[in-house]
Amino acid sequence: MDVLICTDKEQDRWHDALAGCLPEARLHVGVDAPPCDYAVLWKPPAAVFARQPRLQAMFSLGAGVNGLLAMPELPRDVPLVRMEDCGMAAQMVEYAYYVALRQFRRFRQFAAAQTEQRWAPRGFRPRAKFHIGVLGIGVLGGAVAQALAEFGFTVSGWSRSPKSLDGVHCTHGDNGLNTVLASSQLLLVFLPLTTATEGLLNRQRLSQLPAGACLANVSRGEVLDDEALLDALDRGHIEEAHLDVFRHEPLAAGHRYWSHPRVCITPHVAALTPYAIACIQVAEKIRRLQAGESITGIVDRARGY
Amino acid sequence: MDVLICTDKEQDRWHDALAGCLPEARLHVGVDAPPCDYAVLWKPPAAVFARQPRLQAMFSLGAGVNGLLAMPELPRDVPLVRMEDCGMAAQMVEYAYYVALRQFRRFRQFAAAQTEQRWAPRGFRPRAKFHIGVLGIGVLGGAVAQALAEFGFTVSGWSRSPKSLDGVHCTHGDNGLNTVLASSQLLLVFLPLTTATEGLLNRQRLSQLPAGACLANVSRGEVLDDEALLDALDRGHIEEAHLDVFRHEPLAAGHRYWSHPRVCITPHVAALTPYAIACIQVAEKIRRLQAGESITGIVDRARGY
Repeated sequence: MDVLICTDKEQDRWHDALAGCLPEARLHVGVDAPPCDYAVLWKPPAAVFARQPRLQAMFSLGAGVNGLLAMPELPRDVPLVRMEDCGMAAQMVEYAYYVALRQFRRFRQFAAAQTEQRWAPRGFRPRAKFHIGVLGIGVLGGAVAQALAEFGFTVSGWSRSPKSLDGVHCTHGDNGLNTVLASSQLLLVFLPLTTATEGLLNRQRLSQLPAGACLANVSRGEVLDDEALLDALDRGHIEEAHLDVFRHEPLAAGHRYWSHPRVCITPHVAALTPYAIACIQVAEKIRRLQAGESITGIVDRARGY
Repeated sequence: MDVLICTDKEQDRWHDALAGCLPEARLHVGVDAPPCDYAVLWKPPAAVFARQPRLQAMFSLGAGVNGLLAMPELPRDVPLVRMEDCGMAAQMVEYAYYVALRQFRRFRQFAAAQTEQRWAPRGFRPRAKFHIGVLGIGVLGGAVAQALAEFGFTVSGWSRSPKSLDGVHCTHGDNGLNTVLASSQLLLVFLPLTTATEGLLNRQRLSQLPAGACLANVSRGEVLDDEALLDALDRGHIEEAHLDVFRHEPLAAGHRYWSHPRVCITPHVAALTPYAIACIQVAEKIRRLQAGESITGIVDRARGY
């Protein structure tokens, strides 16, 4: 069995990690590799596919596959498999806990008071009085919603199709979205980028959030209308935005987000793909496919994720 | 049964909250109250004790009783009862999670990169590789140490007397302190203020922390040598200090802490006493004493807490 690894960076590190998990395979690296049975891909050059006529499956090294799906060269008839969890949910939970506790315990307000040398204690509030909305409650968003609910916050989730999660008030459809937006002191965005979610958080929807709400986007920049968000931040309608993803990455020098006092930027690190865990997952799925068994995580191309 | 409430602020609020939990008592408020059986106190004027000859027990509305113990007027032969947990452990856990996640996920470094418009992703690390030391593992510190360990961080605790906590490497004595200091990327200080802990975190002990460590003090300001901490912060040996408590509160205008770029100040709010929960605890203990039963939380005056 031959496996191709073609990524935009750190190919050797991926090679070594996968070699440890899948010793029975011959591994090949880069765009000029010979024809292989499986491909492990992240932001590959378009030319890679022309030399790969016999692929049985393609594995994305990230959870978001919109970049691969947007490539016209991507073979239509070869299953594309997205990365599932592999430690990313735990990282998303860490990021979400930090953002939630920062707002819930008013650390931003204490930092602002500190710049004015102002001693300004604020009262106690129980966790259940803090309402968090999670848009997108799949593998990552669902795990985060449940973790926040277990911690004691009041959590609502919204997804395309009806879902059920322990301790989370799950909604779907337009009415569900309206309900979640109206009640969310903190809105966490985990939506995959699809034609249905592009620009979803526009001016009108951001205005549905309660005054003083915070927002964190850890999915894709295109889900959010940047100008509308900046306006909402300028007006103070949104108190703080945590942005991990952007329409163009790296975020361009001089972009207003960089210097906005209410924006906290992280450079697309909310959930990194841990090499070891990701390679174990890919290796297990390749073995199942070799044995003629079914696997999870195959992308529905009509749905877009 | 008569119960005196004498606090430095919000006496009426304490009165109403306690009245709801202990309807069988006659409540009296302030320094001029008639002689009572029990006193509920927080920063009372010294004159209050002269008018209270028949007190059976005194309840502190905070967990730290060093202020009351320092009053020469405090009756020697009346049991002093400190507040136990009553929701404060949960608040301390929130504070500690925030501080730990901020350092573990490098949010401070991302904020610094943002001011330079620098896109600088950093790698993944598993929670177990992040070492947290907790000084003082009683009711509050112990709950925090266990919560952080359950989350997956590697946690060491240190206390005066030997203790045992699930998942926490517990130490005591001088050797134990040296071990905890040397390994703590984050040091959380929960020590009560006693003659043994005053100035404990001096220049020499702070230098035992690994370079780039962070520190959070949520106990009493006197435990820490302020000048030594400022030096360590200036040198970058300590990357960030979260300070909730100070030698003099409110922190004086112009104090160097206010404007230090590596100091995050919160105004003694890490764990507030929730009125309702506190009053339920006091009411239950008064009822037990009235019934001739034993209670927990009586201060050992020799020990100082």
